[in-house]
Amino acid sequence: MNQPNELKIYNSLSKEKEVFKPINAPHIGMYVCGPTVYNEVHLGNCRTFVSFDIVYRYLTHLGYKVRYVRNITDVGHLVGDVDSGAEDKISKRARLEKLEPMEIVQKYTNLFHRVMNKLNAIEPSIEPTATGHIVEQIEMVKAILANGYGYEVNGSVYFDMEKLLKERDEYGQLSGKKVEDLLVETRDDLKNQDEKRHPSDFAIWVKAAPSHIMRWPSPWSDGFPGWHLECSAMSTKYLGEQFDIHGGGMDLQFPHHENEVAQNIGACGCAPVKYWMHGNMLELEGRKMSKSTGHTIFPDELFSGDNNILSKGYSPMVLRFFMLQAHYRSTLNITDDALQAAEKGYLRMLEAYQTLQGLEHSGEENLTADDQQINKMLDLAYAGMNDDFNTALALGKLNVVIPKINSIKNGRLPMSNISKVTLDRMKKVFHDFIFDVFGLLDETQVGGQEEDHDLLDNVMQILIEMRQEARNNKDWAASDKLRDALQAAGVQIKDGKEGASWVKI
Amino acid sequence: MNQPNELKIYNSLSKEKEVFKPINAPHIGMYVCGPTVYNEVHLGNCRTFVSFDIVYRYLTHLGYKVRYVRNITDVGHLVGDVDSGAEDKISKRARLEKLEPMEIVQKYTNLFHRVMNKLNAIEPSIEPTATGHIVEQIEMVKAILANGYGYEVNGSVYFDMEKLLKERDEYGQLSGKKVEDLLVETRDDLKNQDEKRHPSDFAIWVKAAPSHIMRWPSPWSDGFPGWHLECSAMSTKYLGEQFDIHGGGMDLQFPHHENEVAQNIGACGCAPVKYWMHGNMLELEGRKMSKSTGHTIFPDELFSGDNNILSKGYSPMVLRFFMLQAHYRSTLNITDDALQAAEKGYLRMLEAYQTLQGLEHSGEENLTADDQQINKMLDLAYAGMNDDFNTALALGKLNVVIPKINSIKNGRLPMSNISKVTLDRMKKVFHDFIFDVFGLLDETQVGGQEEDHDLLDNVMQILIEMRQEARNNKDWAASDKLRDALQAAGVQIKDGKEGASWVKI
Repeated sequence: MNQPNELKIYNSLSKEKEVFKPINAPHIGMYVCGPTVYNEVHLGNCRTFVSFDIVYRYLTHLGYKVRYVRNITDVGHLVGDVDSGAEDKISKRARLEKLEPMEIVQKYTNLFHRVMNKLNAIEPSIEPTATGHIVEQIEMVKAILANGYGYEVNGSVYFDMEKLLKERDEYGQLSGKKVEDLLVETRDDLKNQDEKRHPSDFAIWVKAAPSHIMRWPSPWSDGFPGWHLECSAMSTKYLGEQFDIHGGGMDLQFPHHENEVAQNIGACGCAPVKYWMHGNMLELEGRKMSKSTGHTIFPDELFSGDNNILSKGYSPMVLRFFMLQAHYRSTLNITDDALQAAEKGYLRMLEAYQTLQGLEHSGEENLTADDQQINKMLDLAYAGMNDDFNTALALGKLNVVIPKINSIKNGRLPMSNISKVTLDRMKKVFHDFIFDVFGLLDETQVGGQEEDHDLLDNVMQILIEMRQEARNNKDWAASDKLRDALQAAGVQIKDGKEGASWVKI
Repeated sequence: MNQPNELKIYNSLSKEKEVFKPINAPHIGMYVCGPTVYNEVHLGNCRTFVSFDIVYRYLTHLGYKVRYVRNITDVGHLVGDVDSGAEDKISKRARLEKLEPMEIVQKYTNLFHRVMNKLNAIEPSIEPTATGHIVEQIEMVKAILANGYGYEVNGSVYFDMEKLLKERDEYGQLSGKKVEDLLVETRDDLKNQDEKRHPSDFAIWVKAAPSHIMRWPSPWSDGFPGWHLECSAMSTKYLGEQFDIHGGGMDLQFPHHENEVAQNIGACGCAPVKYWMHGNMLELEGRKMSKSTGHTIFPDELFSGDNNILSKGYSPMVLRFFMLQAHYRSTLNITDDALQAAEKGYLRMLEAYQTLQGLEHSGEENLTADDQQINKMLDLAYAGMNDDFNTALALGKLNVVIPKINSIKNGRLPMSNISKVTLDRMKKVFHDFIFDVFGLLDETQVGGQEEDHDLLDNVMQILIEMRQEARNNKDWAASDKLRDALQAAGVQIKDGKEGASWVKI
């Protein structure tokens, strides 16, 4: 492990920060609930995935070997047109003309990957799909039935929550629901859900209605797995019956994550997760985002500026930096001002980084308090990350070091005030945090590329005019000199009928 | 349909070019055998996928609605370490320390997508995985058994080829194998494959050895599907029992595609595919590529130039253009010279395109043979594509038009020689072919971006020197003028301790 400090994680299960002790170090198993791919990924989801990307990055940075599983929920609830009868009339036409849910799944999975890529989120070790694990889900239903925690009604299978609530005390820990409150509900509370024996019961296998397109054969019916089941089946398959970290958005705590716990107890006899982590919500101008009222922005709208809420577009790295400025367990509020501040902060940090890498120590050392202060801030940056991955704290400490870097550059702070060891440490810590832990890309270098092309063209127009001026003045020496310099730089000016233009050579 | 000419496709089944008549126009179902994701994608595979990308693009260009399915083969044959016994000793450790095939699958699937993306191949409508369709494959085995075309031995299930060969005449059509030759083989030819009744039989479900990691429960054993089965199951699921086009590399004709036909007959009673298309091989310096002898290049090695065979790197679009220069059914030989020629050809075409878009018709028309000749070449470009997607022919015809474009630009060919209608048609056809049909990107515009950054820096150094010179000469007017011009262009020169530098503003 790179840093001796203890990493603490806020565990939603105990509601406390606990010292992180992996079940089987240096291996760590981490499961994060991924997107549902029936529409464009929401900015709030992006925040969750960036938060856990940073958890993954930091654990890896500390030297752990993390198997990171993030699923794709592609078992949706699309229904076909029951009345068309196309399949019966002209069966050979039916297949291609029908809505194929997997086309929608593919489209939005691709879009999701593109957004994650823009945000520089590392791809998970495994990205399993719900449709890809129907066998495993059916096996889990069988195990739950065999252990007496489920019952079948008319081809659907339900989880028997009443039994679990009476026998075990794990349910409700995550969401803070009280078992007594849950048990007090009766069949009268079921309303139209006639097949369930108890209001807290939930479906683990659903018999498909005739119009339901996505369906698979099972021992109980042609149907599809209940929503909660996929995460239990896939986390167990790839991480084992008990694993270290399970993450997701706060909105998934109940019922999704509670029901995952229930299913795992039902199938395997034990609760699956040692540390439950939940990311908080993202708001827009102080209010919850909502598609129905239009009070929302999609990631690409935020990047391009093509929206009615923000004054301009903000790059993916500015969005990422903006997210880093808050702890993942705090709500975060998108506003134009906050994004502009993040843009400045991001550029300031990248500029400081470049400056820092260019600094060379003179060798002379007359250490002052500056040296100690810098080291303290670097320690505190790690302490921030060790405090439940508090990126806001870590970022704040690095920000304190930035004026020192700039002062050294400007000569206001003599290089000799800090030791060579400290300078080298600053270089390493800034590099490790900015790129490895925070996962930022230097857009001033590799990004802004279209801009580069435009700028290059602008600047070349200036040079073309200067050349023209020299030629108008019959200053052939200046004109030739410019031509040679441009040639050496990799550019050539070409004269044509419609004036001069330039090409790369 | 955009073009009235008949599209002809060489059908590997009939060994003839046939007029393309979709089963259910405008819908087209197309299935292409995708990569096996247990290692890096091979350049030969890339050629196949680019070829079918162009088939997909051209069909779409003609106005068809294509459902394009290309699978990911991820049921591999990795085996675990049987002797470790880890699972028994310390079961909680086992899962994370074990080799997890799906991690390998994920890694190479991601790499494959990255390469396809670089080559600007359009993502298929659906990209199903073999592991994601175990249920469907088990159902197909059941159907084959129910129809009497399979038999079970010790938990494995085999396809009964002898029965098929005696009852039906479809088998062998693709590969040209003679039924009599196949039937004449006897049990003596089986060697160690004791479970098979006949040498031509093949496994459709395989009982897993204890050391085999990837395994699923089935009615016959814990095991995995036979290799050929996934394509039959997934094409049937997404395209129906009979669909239009099935593509793949020539090496898949036998036994893979023949066995797909056998399985579909066994399960559904009919051969699945109307037009079978097979792409030819890619050679390197006249010889077959081979990993074992090192006579091979991976895509990224070709792009970067990091290899011992080529003199430099070639961009993805140069590789794509290179592939277009041959018909997909011809072998294609990678050599340094050929790639250099492709690079020139690619740049020449893109430059002509840019020139063409800048041309404006004068309105005056004194038509000459040029007008007719150009139209003829554009017709022939379509005719080339209609002739079994012959990109080499189509490209050749457009190449004939390029000197005309350049002559118009240089004034050697008067604009009035061709009609405005012809000029507009040229613009449209060049645009449609280059970007939509051939799928080329203009790397001189959107690509080469790192280059832009470097060039911009080079050119800015020239301007910084010019400014310094002006200042040395106390020519403040020139220095200020340059500063203002740069400011307007979006760039600012900054003076610092270590000389001047520039930043974007």
